[in-house]
Amino acid sequence: MSDLCAHLDDVEAAAGRIAPYAHKTPVLRCSALDQILGAELYFKCENFQKVGAFKFRGACNAVTSLSEEELHRGVATHSSGNHAAALALSAKLAGSSAHIVIPSNAPAVKKAAVEGYGATITYCEPTLDARESTLAQVLEKEGRIMIHPYNDARIIAGQGTAALELLEEVGDLDVVMAPVGGGGLLSGTSIAVSESSPSTKVIGAEPLNADDAYRSMQSGEIQPSENPQTIADGLLTSLGELTFEILKERCSGIVTVSEDSIVEAMRLVWERMKIVIEPSAALPVAALLEKRSEVSGERVGVIFSGGNIDLERLPWLK
Amino acid sequence: MSDLCAHLDDVEAAAGRIAPYAHKTPVLRCSALDQILGAELYFKCENFQKVGAFKFRGACNAVTSLSEEELHRGVATHSSGNHAAALALSAKLAGSSAHIVIPSNAPAVKKAAVEGYGATITYCEPTLDARESTLAQVLEKEGRIMIHPYNDARIIAGQGTAALELLEEVGDLDVVMAPVGGGGLLSGTSIAVSESSPSTKVIGAEPLNADDAYRSMQSGEIQPSENPQTIADGLLTSLGELTFEILKERCSGIVTVSEDSIVEAMRLVWERMKIVIEPSAALPVAALLEKRSEVSGERVGVIFSGGNIDLERLPWLK
Repeated sequence: MSDLCAHLDDVEAAAGRIAPYAHKTPVLRCSALDQILGAELYFKCENFQKVGAFKFRGACNAVTSLSEEELHRGVATHSSGNHAAALALSAKLAGSSAHIVIPSNAPAVKKAAVEGYGATITYCEPTLDARESTLAQVLEKEGRIMIHPYNDARIIAGQGTAALELLEEVGDLDVVMAPVGGGGLLSGTSIAVSESSPSTKVIGAEPLNADDAYRSMQSGEIQPSENPQTIADGLLTSLGELTFEILKERCSGIVTVSEDSIVEAMRLVWERMKIVIEPSAALPVAALLEKRSEVSGERVGVIFSGGNIDLERLPWLK
Repeated sequence: MSDLCAHLDDVEAAAGRIAPYAHKTPVLRCSALDQILGAELYFKCENFQKVGAFKFRGACNAVTSLSEEELHRGVATHSSGNHAAALALSAKLAGSSAHIVIPSNAPAVKKAAVEGYGATITYCEPTLDARESTLAQVLEKEGRIMIHPYNDARIIAGQGTAALELLEEVGDLDVVMAPVGGGGLLSGTSIAVSESSPSTKVIGAEPLNADDAYRSMQSGEIQPSENPQTIADGLLTSLGELTFEILKERCSGIVTVSEDSIVEAMRLVWERMKIVIEPSAALPVAALLEKRSEVSGERVGVIFSGGNIDLERLPWLK
């Protein structure tokens, strides 16, 4: 693999770097879900992470890796929400500043969080092209350091720390499952798991309506996600070169799930576990509901990626 | 106090009796809520308890206290919901049977839970008179053991185990706050706290629209709650003789809060802590929002009583 790819020692270094800032999130169990899904499930609750999502781990690792001069210049990114809030808070905690390009259709609660952390915001059209061109303008004008939401080894290493904590806490797992959008969480998880517990499989779960990672893995080439329509608003982006390279080598497989299953899984978790997860976080449970992976009786780790959702707009309410 | 009142050793015995069945629920913290409410808050998450509410503790203690002959006769009660589910599951786990009288206006999700645990259900009008007369008929016909939702020393001792765990886990607290309906949780909490940590205050929080406990404490006589209209559907009942006697002696005070504050507090907890609590569980946070108690900078334990709510009918959606 490319030297740009993160390895286990990068994930371990990230864990040390973010320790003073990030929550060591709890691993919850739920006998009702074990029974319904037919496996021994261990839920790593990144919905309880700072900014309400695993994204804080990567952003915090990236920002705390910067030099004094870079911190002074400040950081910038484009993001549909959770990475935006994560970078904004990380910059604030490190005494730096952030400028975030946000697609206009991002959930209100995510926009409000970014504002709350004191970042500058520029809105753009909800396409990858518009996001990238708007960010390029910001970077050229302000000389900030670009922190990509997922195609960055520091981000990937940071995201991998969630799986590292999960394995440390519950020991041997047969499978670890995570949602996949741009692939930052899944590639970081793949590195942490494949190098520290080689017999454990890593499975990504993706919306059928945004199945670019599945198609990319099938074809061996990055397949872009073009204007995908899914309730999982954190999983709209396409894989990057780095995340794709890692997934090809280290991820056991990617499964796709329907929109109905995502809503059903999300509601099941709210009702049975009494915790708030966002649609994107429900993907692994949706895959288990659809029996997309054969995990019967196995010890399965599930990463709940985040809990940021507009409570005025719940998907089961018409 | 009457010998019927539970004491710390009863709470400790209950803790041992229910240990094989009940969850030792986590104590969560939330820096955002600490900041908003101006205190150091420790949230005992009984919304994660079996059946989604602290009520399992009392019901389980009551059922596991029965003789073989009593278990064979089975148990019965009236309840607006959480005690119903708790008694149904406790009876099932102990190899007994349960018959529950439920007011017709109880939330659908709570009715479904009772059915799921295999109990027999009889519906009645939503008044205390109808509940008691319907239950009397069941008891006369079937010879079951009545397990009152709160006015029972075994129930009170069981509910006190939540506060016992809270104190064991986080050490000295200045205040412990709990909601008050019939007073089972608050009186059990008062016993556990006053006997094991005498300098810690215990404060009950009650809907202004169902302020019978507040009025009872003021007047020195039990004041009934007559057809109260509050979103806190677990707090509709009046104090019982036992719970009132305990509260008079051991509870530091009861504060009342508005319906708007209950909804605001509930939503705040969902948004910031990413956990699902039911309206009744939001009472202490509502009291803190209204600054009904002076706890500035203090270490405050809050018992989140339950998390059972119909996700189709959220109070902030018109």
